[in-house]
Amino acid sequence: MASNVTLRIELDSAVPAYRQIVDGLRILLVNGQLAPGSELPSVRRMALDLGVHFNTVAEAYRTLADEGWLELRQGRGATVVKREAPAAGSEQVEDLRRRLQALTAEMLAKGVPAAKLRSLMRAAAEEL
Amino acid sequence: MASNVTLRIELDSAVPAYRQIVDGLRILLVNGQLAPGSELPSVRRMALDLGVHFNTVAEAYRTLADEGWLELRQGRGATVVKREAPAAGSEQVEDLRRRLQALTAEMLAKGVPAAKLRSLMRAAAEEL
Repeated sequence: MASNVTLRIELDSAVPAYRQIVDGLRILLVNGQLAPGSELPSVRRMALDLGVHFNTVAEAYRTLADEGWLELRQGRGATVVKREAPAAGSEQVEDLRRRLQALTAEMLAKGVPAAKLRSLMRAAAEEL
Repeated sequence: MASNVTLRIELDSAVPAYRQIVDGLRILLVNGQLAPGSELPSVRRMALDLGVHFNTVAEAYRTLADEGWLELRQGRGATVVKREAPAAGSEQVEDLRRRLQALTAEMLAKGVPAAKLRSLMRAAAEEL
């Protein structure tokens, strides 16, 4: 089953394209828009569509395969596989706490008002 | 006024030391634990304390100076300066929304339960 993945990345962003592809696909995988059995475009196709280097997409696919989301096929692309969710340890929770704190500080420093931050965090929590 | 900055970084973390130093200091700057007039340790001192390369600390100080938090002194360290908070544009807010979404997906993928995520986000929002 081929899937119509719509992934947009910003080439002029400070976030590397590799990171944007991994994060963007992971969101689709976690929320089920990319379900087991779906086929991702070939590395070549995706690289052309996004305007990035072949290797950037290949590396992103490999990362998601290492996380258990994808099965890679030689030169052809990737298939979404059924994945057992791991059990998070306390380090993961501590890591999240730390990263939320860093993100919060960064955004306050950039001038995002605290009230706006609060409402975005509440919205993110409620979307779960 | 010299300040006793306590900054801990994890050398075996996937997060680069540079990022950890910038994020860690920014949290102290945003919450006022590092107030204007405070002096940071010299680059050399901080590098020795943290067990990282001189250049890593120098780059972190430069980043925070570019953001308007620090005034660098040739070879001697850095002083925290009074900083006017910029007004955030809608890109900053959109950037935050996107990064919260990516962080959420990553943590769910790592097995952090949704309920735990929700409570951590609520806690982060309330700390503001």
